[in-house]
Amino acid sequence: MAAEVLSIDRKESATRIGRDIETLAGPDYTRSEEAIRRYAYTPEYRNTLDYFIGELDALGFEHYEDPVGTLVARNRPRGEKVFGVGSHCDSNRNGGKYDGTMGVVTALEVCRLNEEMGLDLPLQLVSFLEEEGSGFGQMLLGSRIIAQRVTEEELREKFLAVDDGRTFWEHAEEAGYEPGRWQDSVRLLDELVGWIELHIEQARVLQDTGNRIGVVGAIAGYVHADITVHGRGDHAGATPMDFRQDAGIVMAECMLELERLAKEAGAGTVGTVGEIELRPNLINAVPGQARFSLDIRGVDEEGFRGVARDIAAFAQTAAERRGMSAEYTQRQTLPATPLDGRVTAALEEAAEASGEPYMAMHSGAAHDTMSIADRVPSAMVFVPCKDGISHSPEEDADPTDAALGAEIMLNAIRRFIANEV
Amino acid sequence: MAAEVLSIDRKESATRIGRDIETLAGPDYTRSEEAIRRYAYTPEYRNTLDYFIGELDALGFEHYEDPVGTLVARNRPRGEKVFGVGSHCDSNRNGGKYDGTMGVVTALEVCRLNEEMGLDLPLQLVSFLEEEGSGFGQMLLGSRIIAQRVTEEELREKFLAVDDGRTFWEHAEEAGYEPGRWQDSVRLLDELVGWIELHIEQARVLQDTGNRIGVVGAIAGYVHADITVHGRGDHAGATPMDFRQDAGIVMAECMLELERLAKEAGAGTVGTVGEIELRPNLINAVPGQARFSLDIRGVDEEGFRGVARDIAAFAQTAAERRGMSAEYTQRQTLPATPLDGRVTAALEEAAEASGEPYMAMHSGAAHDTMSIADRVPSAMVFVPCKDGISHSPEEDADPTDAALGAEIMLNAIRRFIANEV
Repeated sequence: MAAEVLSIDRKESATRIGRDIETLAGPDYTRSEEAIRRYAYTPEYRNTLDYFIGELDALGFEHYEDPVGTLVARNRPRGEKVFGVGSHCDSNRNGGKYDGTMGVVTALEVCRLNEEMGLDLPLQLVSFLEEEGSGFGQMLLGSRIIAQRVTEEELREKFLAVDDGRTFWEHAEEAGYEPGRWQDSVRLLDELVGWIELHIEQARVLQDTGNRIGVVGAIAGYVHADITVHGRGDHAGATPMDFRQDAGIVMAECMLELERLAKEAGAGTVGTVGEIELRPNLINAVPGQARFSLDIRGVDEEGFRGVARDIAAFAQTAAERRGMSAEYTQRQTLPATPLDGRVTAALEEAAEASGEPYMAMHSGAAHDTMSIADRVPSAMVFVPCKDGISHSPEEDADPTDAALGAEIMLNAIRRFIANEV
Repeated sequence: MAAEVLSIDRKESATRIGRDIETLAGPDYTRSEEAIRRYAYTPEYRNTLDYFIGELDALGFEHYEDPVGTLVARNRPRGEKVFGVGSHCDSNRNGGKYDGTMGVVTALEVCRLNEEMGLDLPLQLVSFLEEEGSGFGQMLLGSRIIAQRVTEEELREKFLAVDDGRTFWEHAEEAGYEPGRWQDSVRLLDELVGWIELHIEQARVLQDTGNRIGVVGAIAGYVHADITVHGRGDHAGATPMDFRQDAGIVMAECMLELERLAKEAGAGTVGTVGEIELRPNLINAVPGQARFSLDIRGVDEEGFRGVARDIAAFAQTAAERRGMSAEYTQRQTLPATPLDGRVTAALEEAAEASGEPYMAMHSGAAHDTMSIADRVPSAMVFVPCKDGISHSPEEDADPTDAALGAEIMLNAIRRFIANEV
């Protein structure tokens, strides 16, 4: 039952991955000279898809684009079951070379190795459309269309281009797609027996722990919310400490309590106050109002939602204790996405066999894999990025780690298919 | 030795004070239709001085303006010792009817009562120039010139009009004054045996404690400073709690510690974080930097300076404990101004005799009295203003309280002079 573990020429793979990455950082593939900037329905995005198509053609893969432009390439006729690999190749507007693109490039390398080594694994490469939202302000758009997590009204009327305010629908048609058939996109999922997406970590855990590979077992859900404390604006010099209703002080108490609650919740739950607005925000004025944002995430659904509930209650109590009031307003929320234990087990086994340091972890950031994980047994592989920097031209990652990722993915897919069949 | 206590017709005085205030809120006396806006060398300010001159002429006071425009009126020939009363009649650019002006109006009422009641107290009314800094961005300018706390270079070159950028010197000459003689302004102090300034409180202590009069025994000094915490900006979702250097958390700790330190220091010491700037200030980003302002005041010099020292040290320790750094930068500082125990004792006796509720207190805000208190035995009288609101067209105060203030000042001056002579 256990297939023997394959070793690849990692140096050769790293060279090819590095070459692909650098090619796609060239002037034909980005709309900015200072950063990577590419998004759906632009010439630069088209060039990027065409680059992948050229490479996949050479491997004998057939390819198509779904009704809105997600690229799919496979080495089996349509209808046959395959294992999916890929990510997205659009970027943030001020992005780097690695976010998303390194995942598609590594998926391409997996396809190359499969052919070169004569493994004959049934593979399908997917490059999702508009993960970053740079074109229409909608994150995970291509994969949400595949998952049917959008409405036709949104596609026809509500999702508007950042550049010109025209609809997604209009832009998709103009680019030669058939958005009217968007519901057919879901078929891609029917053909997948499993899915692995490689991505840069976008944080510094792998770097700081000395691991080269992260096997991702879950993607965090989140609550985005605001708390506004209503105090009383007063003269900072003339108002004694005991006469104050300083909204900033309640905010400070909440910030420390949020940190405590997140640590207490464990399971990688995180809580952040990232945005603060005091009123009037003057050196000599006691703040009459303080608004601060909450970003609370975790893979333990009860855990992170409990933190959100607890901090809302704490804010109210802390405010009332000082004669003030506080209100909690939710902006947005998404549930946590558990990934598939069989796929992660196969990845961990393969990572172990590689002899390189790896760790099990979860993803705090959102990824396209969230859109398909409830339909297809899925997992992700993280590789380190320098100092955790992402969504920036400063982004840096090592093709050698991606090559190691390709080897581990290849072995894991073999193992998974052997186990499942 | 003790003079008998006089009672005035408070209702009559309140009517006159109210009439003066409303007159000076009319269109000839303010440059704005929405607020009181008057400052040095404008027609509206000239009209205001002329209004007082007219009223003081009628009382037989002689008057002059010092070399830059501070109005002085006295019922004794120059050279003879007098007791000073007054405040300022310029306003904030978006000011109310009471800040400063109510003090000059009440001083005028004291002069009126002195004549009407045949008390023959030697009095000098002073209306200081440019207390608010609306004209040249320099607070307490007239009284600082009197105290010789400016340099000729500042007056000639550095103090520039907010409206047109031209120098204070040029504007003063254009208005008919002789700024070249600014050093003569100090003579005003030589003729004063004592000084009382009435002012609205600009906070809510009197209102909230049910007192109508505050006898001010000291004016707080202050430290204005900033603390900047240098942490590390990270992805709020992808960065586990234990990997963070969240500058916002250190700031929150400092905010609570500042409150604790100010309360611990006692003696009315106050500490405020009024202004906050996070970077990058995004909901999904761990703050990499946090700057926050400190406004620390008190009448106990060692007390409030100790709070400033302690919070600077605390910030550094708190930052280092989390692997970060913090720096403390002072913007500005002024020492506390103790007022004169004999003048405050006379005021307290008079307040006691009035039968109305009063309290001893200090001033958290700066006033012209700070400029002269080291040369002349001085004190201040506060009256309530509604909800502590000041520097706003919403400013509100009760002429009845000012009339009570006039009675108390009159009795205190009689007592002080009787005791001193």
